[in-house]
Formats: sequence, C-alpha cells, structure tokens
Amino acid sequence: MIKPEVFLEFLEGRRSIRSYQDKSLSEKEIEMILEAGRLTPSASNRQPWEFIVIKNKEILLKLTKCLHYGKFMKEAPVAIGIVAKIKTSPKWYLIDTSLVSMNMMLMAWSLGIGTCWIGAMNREKAKEIIGLGDNDYLLTVLPFGYIKGDIPEPTARKSLEKIVKYIE
Amino acid sequence: MIKPEVFLEFLEGRRSIRSYQDKSLSEKEIEMILEAGRLTPSASNRQPWEFIVIKNKEILLKLTKCLHYGKFMKEAPVAIGIVAKIKTSPKWYLIDTSLVSMNMMLMAWSLGIGTCWIGAMNREKAKEIIGLGDNDYLLTVLPFGYIKGDIPEPTARKSLEKIVKYIE
Repeated sequence: MIKPEVFLEFLEGRRSIRSYQDKSLSEKEIEMILEAGRLTPSASNRQPWEFIVIKNKEILLKLTKCLHYGKFMKEAPVAIGIVAKIKTSPKWYLIDTSLVSMNMMLMAWSLGIGTCWIGAMNREKAKEIIGLGDNDYLLTVLPFGYIKGDIPEPTARKSLEKIVKYIE
Repeated sequence: MIKPEVFLEFLEGRRSIRSYQDKSLSEKEIEMILEAGRLTPSASNRQPWEFIVIKNKEILLKLTKCLHYGKFMKEAPVAIGIVAKIKTSPKWYLIDTSLVSMNMMLMAWSLGIGTCWIGAMNREKAKEIIGLGDNDYLLTVLPFGYIKGDIPEPTARKSLEKIVKYIE
C-alpha cells in the first residue's frame, strides 16, 4: 500500500513535461506504463481500448506534424497512442480511456519519466498515419521520455474554496 | 516519490467497492480526496471543474434514486459529484474531469476508502437535486466509504498481447 500523505505529495509533485532526453526507455519501463493502463477500471469492465507503442522515428515525426501544440513530441524516444474502441463501449469509451491516460501518466512519473497530455491534433491524419479504422477514436498520443532540464514550477491552481460546494 | 513497483502493485490491488461501512469519513480524508482532484492536470490548465460534497442523507437518497446501477450509493457516508464546467473548456471538459475522477479514486484507495465510478443515471434529475445549471455537466457521483466485507476478487482483464500494438 501507499500512505495517503505520500500519494498526495506524489500528485503535488507531478508535472507535465515537454522536454525529453535523447535516451531510450527500457522494455520494462514501457511495459509498466502499459500495465498501468491495462489495470484501469472501465464501465462494465469492457476495457474499450488499444495502446499503440510508437518508437519509429519517422512515424513519430509524421505524427508530431499533426499536433497543434505538441511539437516537443518528436524529441521523445517513445509515444503511446491511446485508442478508444467506440463500438466496444459507445457511451463510455471517452471516459474510460481518459482514466487510462491518467494512470499511465502517474506510472511514468513514478518511473522518473515525463509526459504531457496531447489533445489538439488533426485526428483524421494522425489516425491514418498509425493505421486506425472507423471504430477507433484516437484520444491522445502521450510522449514519454526522461526529463531534460529542470522540473517545471507548479502551475497555478484554483483553491478548494473556489471549486468545492457542500451539501450537508 | 513512490517506487514504480509499489505504484504498479497499488494499481493492481485497487478495486471498485460497492459496499460501505456505516462510518463517517474525517474532514481530513475528504479534503485529501478533493485535493487529489484539484491537482489533476487539465487542458491549458483551465481546471473546468467543481466538486459537490454530499453528506446530507436525504439528498443522497434522492440522488441514489436517479442511478441505474448504483443503488449501493445510499449506504455511503459521503459522495462527491464531479461537475464539468462546459463553457470553461468546451472541448476538453469531459476528459479533464475524467482524469479528476481517476485521481480521486486512487487517493481514496490509498486512504483505505472504497469507491465506484457511477455513470448511468438520469442526469437531468440528478442535476436538479444538487442544484446544477445549464453550464454544468455532471460527470459522475462517486460514493466514498470504508470498505464493508471482503475486498472483491480482481476482474478479468484483457492481456497486453491483445491490446498493444507496436510501431517500431
């Protein structure tokens, strides 16, 4: 088990990382990130997902060109595309795969590996590049790499007072 | 920091819990769950969310009646509604708040507190009960409580071989 104080500190320390060292991840590290995704809960346990591990530099560069704000992805030694299988869970595919992405990001952080959620992209083009079909929704492509440079300062957060209401 | 092996074991051990003890959560515990949500990353750091902490038994019972499969919620000493603010992040509100729900569920697990993602409900009615407006999407209501009875067996998961593809 993990002590709650330790887990909260872990969440507080996590950052989105947009600069990566030119150093490969081990097979073991990639597998642990995939496992974190696989173990995610899903509606009626349908697991409406597929993970595409992209190490090919040429494909990674092509994909990067589809992104609106993720030009840093081309630096990453590996990226994982999280694909939602629409027909497997028509109502919940988006939520279930979002949960997957959170678990993968946290797993990476515990490995000392940085990532950043990338959403804005030319999805149709990106899907074509990695060979996805009509039943596939490409939720995100998460780049993974060892952190280059300093860990960024925390971003500003709304206070609990501002975002919490009580019905007591 | 958390060792990656420890974190993976933590994810492996997590279960959805549908039976709760009749015992309140402390303010500190509830705050830690809220904090885990607050610290979640979001698109452009917009934090398009609001958390409704529901302890009122009458409201909780009314809400439970809106659920299709979550009748166990009425047993919980507290539930947290995760509300997405649609206009704050029209494209990403669903994903960002889904990430919040994962972090809250994990935080609860580290506290020894059980929860279960609840999605299928009469949303309009539920929104009315907790006083939400047009700009609010009620993603989920997560019941939280100390685990009653045995921890459930793991649910079956697809193997990595089945859900992973490589582009090398």
